[in-house]
Amino acid sequence: MNRKEDCIFCKIVNGEIPVSKVYENEHVLAFLDLSQVTKGHTLVIPKNHEENIFELSETTIEHVFKAVPKVANAINSAFDPVGLNMLNNNGEAAGQSVFHYHVHLIPRYGKGDGFGAVWHDHSSEYSTDDLQLVAEQIQSKL
Amino acid sequence: MNRKEDCIFCKIVNGEIPVSKVYENEHVLAFLDLSQVTKGHTLVIPKNHEENIFELSETTIEHVFKAVPKVANAINSAFDPVGLNMLNNNGEAAGQSVFHYHVHLIPRYGKGDGFGAVWHDHSSEYSTDDLQLVAEQIQSKL
Repeated sequence: MNRKEDCIFCKIVNGEIPVSKVYENEHVLAFLDLSQVTKGHTLVIPKNHEENIFELSETTIEHVFKAVPKVANAINSAFDPVGLNMLNNNGEAAGQSVFHYHVHLIPRYGKGDGFGAVWHDHSSEYSTDDLQLVAEQIQSKL
Repeated sequence: MNRKEDCIFCKIVNGEIPVSKVYENEHVLAFLDLSQVTKGHTLVIPKNHEENIFELSETTIEHVFKAVPKVANAINSAFDPVGLNMLNNNGEAAGQSVFHYHVHLIPRYGKGDGFGAVWHDHSSEYSTDDLQLVAEQIQSKL
């Protein structure tokens, strides 16, 4: 298991920092986010230190995303929210503050519950040809 | 393959509605979100009609999340953003507008780029005992 010495999530995995655990298996840990943006706000992390979505190994992806819907369903059963957002921030500019991969599960209880998305629709700025070009630029890197 | 007649994403999968495709395999399709909240904003969807994270089969999870980091890396290579958010909205109250499971990949280019999160920290409202109770309520449903 890869560990990074100054990583707070590696310390949590090691039991050096206590958290409110929700779920654990050999590869994955889920625990409450202290900020509780909404009630039941949970993080799912791999035990292995991998920084972000660009670095994730196939094995880690499999383990993390096998756990994510399980935990989401348990949050749903426990609190009967009206919705749930799954969010993963990669890079400081995207809101990542701990550089150990983690998925936020944020149950929703209605407007003003603590979470929301800033969402600007730019569709009027793109022609069909523009979109095709953007898609081809991504395709060329696959 | 499960299809729903009035589902716009099922129609996209069937080729009845044209989109700018980014990636496709037997189980998964990735295409540009018309709103292009940021340049390169892409949706990854299962071809099978499943509504949300609570309904996803293990097989679908595996297929979708095998594709997600691949597409994220391609977006990253194509446009060199400063970050990337992965977002999945479940339920209308969480911002879901098409009720066929989909993961948003939103590359980030800095403040004011089109996307952001409304994020209220409620940590001051929860004691350690409160958090423990919340965690136990979720655990009991696992």
